[in-house]
Amino acid sequence: MPELRRDPIIGRWVIISTERGKRPTDFATVPVGKSTAFCPFCAGNETKTPPEVYSIRAPGTGKDTPGWRVRVVPNKFPALQIEGDLNRQGEGIYDKMNGIGAHEVIIETPDHEKSLGDLDEANISEVLLAWRERMIDLKRDGRFKYILIFKNHGEAAGASLEHSHTQLIAMPIIPKRVSEEIDNSRKYFEFKERCIFCDIVSQETADDVRVVAANEIFLAIEPFAPRFPFETWILPKSHEAAFEEIDRRGIDLLARLLKEILMRLDMALNRPPYNFILHTLPCQGDNRAWYHWHIELIPKLTKVAGFEWGSGFYINPTAPEEACKYLREIAITSLKR
Amino acid sequence: MPELRRDPIIGRWVIISTERGKRPTDFATVPVGKSTAFCPFCAGNETKTPPEVYSIRAPGTGKDTPGWRVRVVPNKFPALQIEGDLNRQGEGIYDKMNGIGAHEVIIETPDHEKSLGDLDEANISEVLLAWRERMIDLKRDGRFKYILIFKNHGEAAGASLEHSHTQLIAMPIIPKRVSEEIDNSRKYFEFKERCIFCDIVSQETADDVRVVAANEIFLAIEPFAPRFPFETWILPKSHEAAFEEIDRRGIDLLARLLKEILMRLDMALNRPPYNFILHTLPCQGDNRAWYHWHIELIPKLTKVAGFEWGSGFYINPTAPEEACKYLREIAITSLKR
Repeated sequence: MPELRRDPIIGRWVIISTERGKRPTDFATVPVGKSTAFCPFCAGNETKTPPEVYSIRAPGTGKDTPGWRVRVVPNKFPALQIEGDLNRQGEGIYDKMNGIGAHEVIIETPDHEKSLGDLDEANISEVLLAWRERMIDLKRDGRFKYILIFKNHGEAAGASLEHSHTQLIAMPIIPKRVSEEIDNSRKYFEFKERCIFCDIVSQETADDVRVVAANEIFLAIEPFAPRFPFETWILPKSHEAAFEEIDRRGIDLLARLLKEILMRLDMALNRPPYNFILHTLPCQGDNRAWYHWHIELIPKLTKVAGFEWGSGFYINPTAPEEACKYLREIAITSLKR
Repeated sequence: MPELRRDPIIGRWVIISTERGKRPTDFATVPVGKSTAFCPFCAGNETKTPPEVYSIRAPGTGKDTPGWRVRVVPNKFPALQIEGDLNRQGEGIYDKMNGIGAHEVIIETPDHEKSLGDLDEANISEVLLAWRERMIDLKRDGRFKYILIFKNHGEAAGASLEHSHTQLIAMPIIPKRVSEEIDNSRKYFEFKERCIFCDIVSQETADDVRVVAANEIFLAIEPFAPRFPFETWILPKSHEAAFEEIDRRGIDLLARLLKEILMRLDMALNRPPYNFILHTLPCQGDNRAWYHWHIELIPKLTKVAGFEWGSGFYINPTAPEEACKYLREIAITSLKR
């Protein structure tokens, strides 16, 4: 019997279609590999990008020259534009405003061959540090209501350049998905006087059937009502509203867990394309008591069709408990590269 | 300057990124074509599907034999199961229920070679009639809260069988996207005492920059804040809450407009894959005053990446006014096949 499950945060129902149950090998993916075309993100090609706004680099090396380990540059083809004012206005019954924002690229490594999951924990820590520093800087701009960090890995997941990178978009609105999470976590808090994400952490830890991995600070789970097969969330075990308030120890433990999850997914699903998104507190407003930052990671295994687009109702052929079992059973020793 | 626009119904903001502006020829699509493998939907193969629940066929021809022009059968691999009760229950903080529902396939033509847009208006009318009859029948089952009709055309749009068909899913919940439309159209009605969809019809007719085509009963527009390039909506000009209350004249005029839109999209975009979804009134509840049925059609031209999934915030490289201009300029005489 297929099962309908409701995401407790935004109220989205999904179908867990166990009779169509799929094992990892049923998803034919093209492993994400690398070509040899010219790449503006490679070391030595620093002049082919806009000037860097942040970098972590070897002592004595200059801005926009080699020697960096992580480098942040404005997107050459930004979706939003940094200069101007918002000019929000009506047009009959409609609303519009100028597309003001920042669109940056965090180049995660000078090495064209490596994906984020291939990097050493120390390198991943530096990537997370770059996310934090850019968020803190951009939050000072009063025009921005939200800063979204996300990654498209592999062409099927929407990556237009294959060299490993994360993107950051600072925007003058709170995106719809985050608004929904905030509205619903507030309603839960008003009723229960508890954070719903903290309650998820408690129940998942007790049930222990959807926990993929954990350490002192973080938990990685397959959520109860995932939209997609092998959808994985990482969240702090204690109540933390804003990612950018993470300390150095938090960064190191998050890097370790993120690497482990990426390696397990690479092994289980043959280096699949994936997307992940960091959901953190909006820049303004007082939602600290009920919001809890987290990362949502989605391997790109299925085609999203008209039914999902039109209904917001997802059919997921893999139960999260099954996905969790596969991911846990990967022998971690075989993951060393 | 890119522009942020807010969908007036569900409050979703999108970026209209005019500087990345794309013409129809910039979207590389694989035209939807036909292979010659065995097809269970072709005339003569009626025994390869579950028994038909509805058909429009030549007089004197029997159930599950050739002679049909439109044929409706249960989906052989249903996402939801027709037998059983809902058994809604909690699991700690989570909610779940049995996956009860109906999942049917409307085979639009016995001819494997034809797409919906290739059919004669009279044939398309019969397809729409089949939608209406199946909806009326399934609404009698008190377990169902919503009946969704949708189409995946072409492999990139998620079609698993290439023979032209629509799908119907009757489900025990109201899908999230429809709930959002209902909630927001009710709020608008409470404030304005008018239907927001009717107001859209008025403003679009007056502005006449996003109207692709129209007839006495229906309007086809590029919406003000489309998520995707060439997203097209078809809606009745007068207030009509439920699709299944359409009369025969309405069916014929909808068939004519739908065919025209599909032909224009085929010409402008080289027979693209597409999805469409019929949004109609839920089976229960009193939302007649503010809800207004419509079809949302989305050619599959862009890859949806992590940013969109994670934020519910879409970057659309083609302004709807531009898309409208291209679609209007297609010479309709050249569309005859």
